[in-house]
Amino acid sequence: MGNIPNDYSVLFLQGGASTQFFSIPMNFLSSDSTADYLVTGSWSKKAVSEAKRFGNIHVAATSEDRNFCYIPREIQHSDKPTYLHFTSNNTIYGTQFAETPDAPGDSFLVCDASSDIFSRPVDVEKYSIIYAGAQKNLGPSGLTLVIIRNDLVENASENLPTMLQYRTHASKQSMYNTPPTFGIYILGLVLKWIRNSGGLDAMSERNAEKAMKLYRYLEESALFQPTADADSRSLMNVTFVTGDGELDAKFIAQATEAGLDGLKGHRSVGGMRASMYNAFPSEGVDALIAAMKQFESEHA
Amino acid sequence: MGNIPNDYSVLFLQGGASTQFFSIPMNFLSSDSTADYLVTGSWSKKAVSEAKRFGNIHVAATSEDRNFCYIPREIQHSDKPTYLHFTSNNTIYGTQFAETPDAPGDSFLVCDASSDIFSRPVDVEKYSIIYAGAQKNLGPSGLTLVIIRNDLVENASENLPTMLQYRTHASKQSMYNTPPTFGIYILGLVLKWIRNSGGLDAMSERNAEKAMKLYRYLEESALFQPTADADSRSLMNVTFVTGDGELDAKFIAQATEAGLDGLKGHRSVGGMRASMYNAFPSEGVDALIAAMKQFESEHA
Repeated sequence: MGNIPNDYSVLFLQGGASTQFFSIPMNFLSSDSTADYLVTGSWSKKAVSEAKRFGNIHVAATSEDRNFCYIPREIQHSDKPTYLHFTSNNTIYGTQFAETPDAPGDSFLVCDASSDIFSRPVDVEKYSIIYAGAQKNLGPSGLTLVIIRNDLVENASENLPTMLQYRTHASKQSMYNTPPTFGIYILGLVLKWIRNSGGLDAMSERNAEKAMKLYRYLEESALFQPTADADSRSLMNVTFVTGDGELDAKFIAQATEAGLDGLKGHRSVGGMRASMYNAFPSEGVDALIAAMKQFESEHA
Repeated sequence: MGNIPNDYSVLFLQGGASTQFFSIPMNFLSSDSTADYLVTGSWSKKAVSEAKRFGNIHVAATSEDRNFCYIPREIQHSDKPTYLHFTSNNTIYGTQFAETPDAPGDSFLVCDASSDIFSRPVDVEKYSIIYAGAQKNLGPSGLTLVIIRNDLVENASENLPTMLQYRTHASKQSMYNTPPTFGIYILGLVLKWIRNSGGLDAMSERNAEKAMKLYRYLEESALFQPTADADSRSLMNVTFVTGDGELDAKFIAQATEAGLDGLKGHRSVGGMRASMYNAFPSEGVDALIAAMKQFESEHA
C-alpha cells in the first residue's frame, strides 16, 4: 500500500468483508450517532442495511438512479457523522473511485477495498479503516485484511463479543484464536509476488495498461459499448454490452468455448464483465479483444 | 457422524469455534432466559464468558476444583434452561465425555465438538446443535462445521446481523457470501478419506486402539503418570507428567530431537500432551512409547 504508518494495526481476520459490514458499525455507532455512506453498488447497499441495526445511517450520495453506472461527485453529508464509508471498486457495475473521498469534519474514513486492494498505491493516512476480503487480489476466501488506526482500536465499544472487538485481534497480533492460517500463508506469497513484480507502482501501471487496452477498443467498437461512465470506470472490472441480450449470450458462449471464461455479467447489469485482478495477465486481455473483434466482424 | 437426519442443516461457516461461542447465545438467549453450561476446560469457560453477554448462564457442573482433570457426573440443572452446552473433548486437559449428556426438560443440547468430531460415530438426533472448528479432524483453520436442527434455524432471533443468523446460511446452502472455499474443498477430501478408511466405526476403533496403547503404558510406567481420571480420559489428547517439571522438559527436548514434535503440554497443565487426531498414525504412538520407555530406563 506504500507503507503502513506506525499508528495503524494490520489485522488478519477470519471471514469475509460481510463480517466487517456489521462489525464496523457495531464497534463505532450507537443509536444517537450517524454514519454517512456512499452507495455505489450492491456491496455498499448491503453495508448500509447491516449498519442500520446499530445507528443512524445517512446515504450521503448514491448512483442508484442510473443503476450504479457512475461514481457520484455530489455528496451531501449529515451534520456530524462518526464516519464516512465507501466501496472503492464496484465489481458488478464496473466502477471505481479514481480519487479518495474526503471524510467531513471530525469523521473518519472507512473503505471497503475488497476488490481493488493492492491494485495501486494508496495513501493509507487518508483512511482510518481499510478492509478487504482476500479473494480478489490477496488469496483464498475466508480471510479479511483490516488496516485500522490504533486510536480507533482503543476507543471502540468494549461491550461486544470478544471476537468482534478489534482490540482482541490487535493486542494478540491476530492470533487470539487460530486464524485462517492457510489463507495468511498464501497472502504472504502474494505480497512477495507483488514486491518481486515491482511493487504497487508496477502493479498499478500494469492494471491501467490492461484496462485501458480494453476500454480503448470498447470506445472504437461498433458493436460493444462500456456500461460505466467514462470518468468512473474500474481498472479491475470492465463491464460492457452489445445492447442485445441474445447477442451478449452468443458472444459469452463463443468466448467460453475459446477458453475465455467467467465473462457473464452479474444478473443485475447483464451483458459482460471482464475481471482483471492483479493476477490476470495482459495476454488474457489481448485474447479477449481479439475474440471481440472477430465477433464484431461477424455481427456488427 | 453416521447419517445426518433430514431435519438438520449442515452449514459450512467462516471463522472458528470462537464465533459460535457468541452466535449461539446471540441467536437463542435473551435477558429473561437461561442456558446451562458444563464447564470442563478453557473452551467451555470461554463459551460461558461470551454467552453471559446475551442471557443468564448457569454453570450446571464444573471440574475446575481439580484443574479439569475429570468429566463431572453430577449435574445441577437450572429450572428451565433454553439449552445445555458442553464441550465433548478438552484438548488441554486430556478429558472427553464418554457418554452424551442429557439435556433436561424441553431444553436442547449444544455441543462444541471441535476436537473430536468424526473421531467416532455420534447419534446426531441426541443433539440440536453440533459445531466444530475445522482444524483438528476436518481441515484447515478458518472454517466451522455446524449441524443444526431446522426448527432452531427457523425460530432463532431475526434481529441480528445477517451473517450471524443461521437461517442466512441454511437458506443459501452456505453460499450467501463466498465461503472459505479452500477449507471446504479439503474437508471434502478428508471426508472421502474417512469413508475410504472404513468410515467412523473404523476411525473410532483406530483412535481407541492408538490411545489405549499409550494409556496402558502410562498405567504401567514407574516414571510417567496420566493426568486425567481413568473414567474421563480423552482418546484424542493424552496428557501425562513425570511429576518433576525439569524432567518433563528434558523428556520433551529429547523427544523433539528424535522427531516427536508438539509434546509440550499447555502451560495451565504442564507436562506432556500427545495429540492423536484422526490423521495421526498408530506408528507415531509406537514411536512415542518407545521413546518414553527409553527415557524411563534412564531416569526411573
